[in-house]
Amino acid sequence: MVAAPRRLHPDELCVHQVTLSGQCDFASSLRVLRDAGIRRTALWAPMIESCGVAEAARIWQDSGMVAESLCVANLFAGEDALRERLELADMFGARTLVMITGGFEDLAPSGASGTDIARARGLIVDRLNVAADLAGQFRVRLAFEPLHPMVCGFRSVVSSLGEALDILDQLDEGHDVGLAIDAYALWWEHDLQAKLKRAGNRILNYHVSDWLADTRDLRLDRGMPGDGQIALLDWRRMIEAAGYRGPVEVEIFSRDRWWKESPETMTRVILERMNIAF
Amino acid sequence: MVAAPRRLHPDELCVHQVTLSGQCDFASSLRVLRDAGIRRTALWAPMIESCGVAEAARIWQDSGMVAESLCVANLFAGEDALRERLELADMFGARTLVMITGGFEDLAPSGASGTDIARARGLIVDRLNVAADLAGQFRVRLAFEPLHPMVCGFRSVVSSLGEALDILDQLDEGHDVGLAIDAYALWWEHDLQAKLKRAGNRILNYHVSDWLADTRDLRLDRGMPGDGQIALLDWRRMIEAAGYRGPVEVEIFSRDRWWKESPETMTRVILERMNIAF
Repeated sequence: MVAAPRRLHPDELCVHQVTLSGQCDFASSLRVLRDAGIRRTALWAPMIESCGVAEAARIWQDSGMVAESLCVANLFAGEDALRERLELADMFGARTLVMITGGFEDLAPSGASGTDIARARGLIVDRLNVAADLAGQFRVRLAFEPLHPMVCGFRSVVSSLGEALDILDQLDEGHDVGLAIDAYALWWEHDLQAKLKRAGNRILNYHVSDWLADTRDLRLDRGMPGDGQIALLDWRRMIEAAGYRGPVEVEIFSRDRWWKESPETMTRVILERMNIAF
Repeated sequence: MVAAPRRLHPDELCVHQVTLSGQCDFASSLRVLRDAGIRRTALWAPMIESCGVAEAARIWQDSGMVAESLCVANLFAGEDALRERLELADMFGARTLVMITGGFEDLAPSGASGTDIARARGLIVDRLNVAADLAGQFRVRLAFEPLHPMVCGFRSVVSSLGEALDILDQLDEGHDVGLAIDAYALWWEHDLQAKLKRAGNRILNYHVSDWLADTRDLRLDRGMPGDGQIALLDWRRMIEAAGYRGPVEVEIFSRDRWWKESPETMTRVILERMNIAF
């Protein structure tokens, strides 16, 4: 019905480190990606921390890999936690730091109740202004990411692209906060084409995985592109029409399926599906 | 922060039959509700069918109960299936027939692919116009229900109140289709107050259950009001401000928690929570 998107060159593929986190540690995930000819990744802070920051930085330097982002900063975790993540992102040369709001638990120390979504949302604009100021001191851009409504209250209280756009439009002038767009989180949303156009050049990262018809877990059952219900080629066409020219990033959490395969199998299948399923 | 909603009278409480479907058959669910002093229910078609329609109709007539709705009609299942559900709703004197779109599987016979959400959504307005014409022949109003995005593609392709409102606004003039609003399906949505006002007197049914912080299943792990993250008293205030004056309907699917309790325990806890948690 619509024109196929332009063909992706392998160098436009990014595979998020977390995709191999079920089988690999920091070092081996990079080795598997590089051996598969994949140069771009997103760094997963828990894997850096398990490795030890200094050791991970040394391995990273030697790897020759490119970091499209570091994941993830939590807006509700406060300024010190954010500064730490910005320093880490800067140290590893990550192009962006992906930022979520966090959930009710992250606000608990400040006395928020576990049901007051209005209060939690009311904090976002001010905190994002502060975060943008802080990020201005680093060579890293903030990419704000709305998450799927099924993790609302747990990982995020911003659950649609429409809401994320309304928030970014309220930031003080000159505050540079972009967007990380995850097809898995947003595929159900209506009027996406118009919303993605509205996002325009604020789209800094674009993530894909597939929604499985028989999804069994709220966080760890994402599908390989092509195995589910998201029209990811249509998505890429929309994303490109909105002006995005960066890599397409595969980000799969799959405890009971793909993490039981070898990481080499995962990367091989991702490469096979590129330009066919996403 | 806001005024408490007006106190609910027990006669304004409705408990959906499916809430007791883990422990009860058609007849016993009605008996348990009536013994608890709850007169209003929503009928669950699979329970009627297990009982046999004629037998269920006889039991229903004798029960003295009031049916706020029959659940559920599936728009994508076609006109014959809808007529059957309308006849059933009419036979049981249900005030409304709750209607969802259905998912990709329901369209499969007509050749839709499992990823073409744009095509599926493109069918809705025409089919709802036809459905409204058909419903006009019965003493039943259609209540269209957007479902949670985590069942998008499976039970529905309309995943927000904003989308449902845009759809209803496109129906031909004079076509009477209202809304069933489920706090569980929509609690994550932004700008709800404005959207509920826009829904206004189209709100025909209002459903509550709670979103559990540790939700373990995409369909069958709804919480008892008060046990989760939805500010249901704020919700009732918003719903009443939008003009809704009907009963509040408790609809809990809880395979691994509440359905392991006796139905008498469930109805007792629901009554205890009324005006405290919802």
